[in-house]
Amino acid sequence: MKSPVHVAVTGAAGQIGYSLLFRIASGQLLGPDQPVILRLIEIEPGMKALEGVVMELQDCAFPLLKGIVPTSDLAEGFDSASWALLVGSVPRKAGMERGDLLGINGKIFTAQGKAIQDNAASDIRTLVVGNPCNTNCLIAMNNAPDVPKDRWFAMTRLDENRAKTQLALKAGVDVDSVKKLAIWGNHSSTMYPNYFDATIGGDPVPSVITDGAWFADSFIPTVQQRGAAIIKARGLSSAASAANAAIDTVRSLTTPTAEDDFFSVAVHSNGEYGIEPGLIYSFPMRSDGSTSSVVEGLAIGDFSSEKIKATEAELLEEKSLVSDLLP
Amino acid sequence: MKSPVHVAVTGAAGQIGYSLLFRIASGQLLGPDQPVILRLIEIEPGMKALEGVVMELQDCAFPLLKGIVPTSDLAEGFDSASWALLVGSVPRKAGMERGDLLGINGKIFTAQGKAIQDNAASDIRTLVVGNPCNTNCLIAMNNAPDVPKDRWFAMTRLDENRAKTQLALKAGVDVDSVKKLAIWGNHSSTMYPNYFDATIGGDPVPSVITDGAWFADSFIPTVQQRGAAIIKARGLSSAASAANAAIDTVRSLTTPTAEDDFFSVAVHSNGEYGIEPGLIYSFPMRSDGSTSSVVEGLAIGDFSSEKIKATEAELLEEKSLVSDLLP
Repeated sequence: MKSPVHVAVTGAAGQIGYSLLFRIASGQLLGPDQPVILRLIEIEPGMKALEGVVMELQDCAFPLLKGIVPTSDLAEGFDSASWALLVGSVPRKAGMERGDLLGINGKIFTAQGKAIQDNAASDIRTLVVGNPCNTNCLIAMNNAPDVPKDRWFAMTRLDENRAKTQLALKAGVDVDSVKKLAIWGNHSSTMYPNYFDATIGGDPVPSVITDGAWFADSFIPTVQQRGAAIIKARGLSSAASAANAAIDTVRSLTTPTAEDDFFSVAVHSNGEYGIEPGLIYSFPMRSDGSTSSVVEGLAIGDFSSEKIKATEAELLEEKSLVSDLLP
Repeated sequence: MKSPVHVAVTGAAGQIGYSLLFRIASGQLLGPDQPVILRLIEIEPGMKALEGVVMELQDCAFPLLKGIVPTSDLAEGFDSASWALLVGSVPRKAGMERGDLLGINGKIFTAQGKAIQDNAASDIRTLVVGNPCNTNCLIAMNNAPDVPKDRWFAMTRLDENRAKTQLALKAGVDVDSVKKLAIWGNHSSTMYPNYFDATIGGDPVPSVITDGAWFADSFIPTVQQRGAAIIKARGLSSAASAANAAIDTVRSLTTPTAEDDFFSVAVHSNGEYGIEPGLIYSFPMRSDGSTSSVVEGLAIGDFSSEKIKATEAELLEEKSLVSDLLP
């Protein structure tokens, strides 16, 4: 029996948390032979609801779940954690400017970055799900300078999965025949689902879907507006699919990537493809099972080039709005 | 690649549905190499929310999910189904008598039983989760006389998991060292978690937990009132742990039971342990991977005997209240 891995989750009593925790405890995050200890972090007003979540986790009798630590204390929450899934954030409210939103969340992620550096295990890896996730990740990373820069991730996998689904529906194929669809840049409306590198059944997407106008007129807007469409139908935002994307991200980072594929996650830019070093930017990625790296050498046409610069520009602007939180 | 199995789920846009569907689609119900087609059944007012759930299922890009059929039509919903998970039911409202509740749900399960008989695959198995689940199952079964009686199940696994958890917490052990804890009878406050047969680390529970008063004073009431405690904390009823119990039930029915264990599910009584034949009654069960049977020959002491008769009496009373729905 392996030693348990401590997994810290913020926003643990929230909706994404509720869809995520049971899948982690059932073995879907780290594998069917890896015991876990869940460290569940909530703000004080969420602690009562978190008690109920803890009871339900207990009531699943998960063989792999070796402990549950519910807490509103960041030091206790991140203690010994090898994975930190930062799901909680403050959503944008009516009348709130983007700078306000970045600032409010920035304070949260400043504190969490410091607590991660001070308390987590030496192999800590952090995935930020709470929005604006790229810049929240940037802030946490910069407030934990002793944690290597290649241990910080922000989630764009839900966008990737949404994009793959739209391509599969259009082509009339199963979604698992769509490969190499990477999201570039910011997890926001400027994110770019680069379909030029993607394949369907091994063939380039533009040779399978020959309706060229569809990509700009339907594909990109549908992916960008998918979250709003789901809120409209359900009356609630995407929780289960976001939780699933978090699991997919960790699985992709911790298992070798298939030869004919890559995946999307926002990482610390080292200047790949001319993107400003230091930004948290989503790239096509591959993993060998333990370390991951940006897929380099992809040809970038004019259309793509414009898109990847536009989303970079947005990230640079977000960074400038939180510059006081970056030591 | 195996052929997809059609899994029908009622109450698909409800809270348990939301916790259940993504785990089914990820392979946790029928295994990691079994493709599935989800047939999602809702009443008309839930169809809009169901649209959102369908979008989210698509957006998970599950490799095993080969189709989704959202419908409010029972014939379409149960068409070709090999598993029917009947999750939806009308909850008890203030001022509603038990007879009213049974009658309202009885009509739903009458129609579902008929539709299952007329449309499902020849190997259909049905698990009723929606409460009052034993009697709902009884009604559906009796309205589908051509479907063999050993294909009908009602869920008591959440009670089993809750009971195992309480025993593990009391003994200070991991929950997976608790075995052979069976729930007897009705999924209601009369259900009986028979700890006399249960083992902890292979030893009989009463020899490990020697605080005899604890069982009647704390253990049984805690298990019985666990649902209410969770509602009090979360403000919402148990959804994820109920969904998990449904998955556990199907897994237990479809995989061989370990030598040193059994599991709980309510089945059609053939008179085992003197229980009235024809009732849907929860027993200790074992499976060989395809068929399951009641564990016979367990010694039943006076305390247990009284409990298993009391819960039988409740089921007989429920049956008498719905006799007009039983052809």
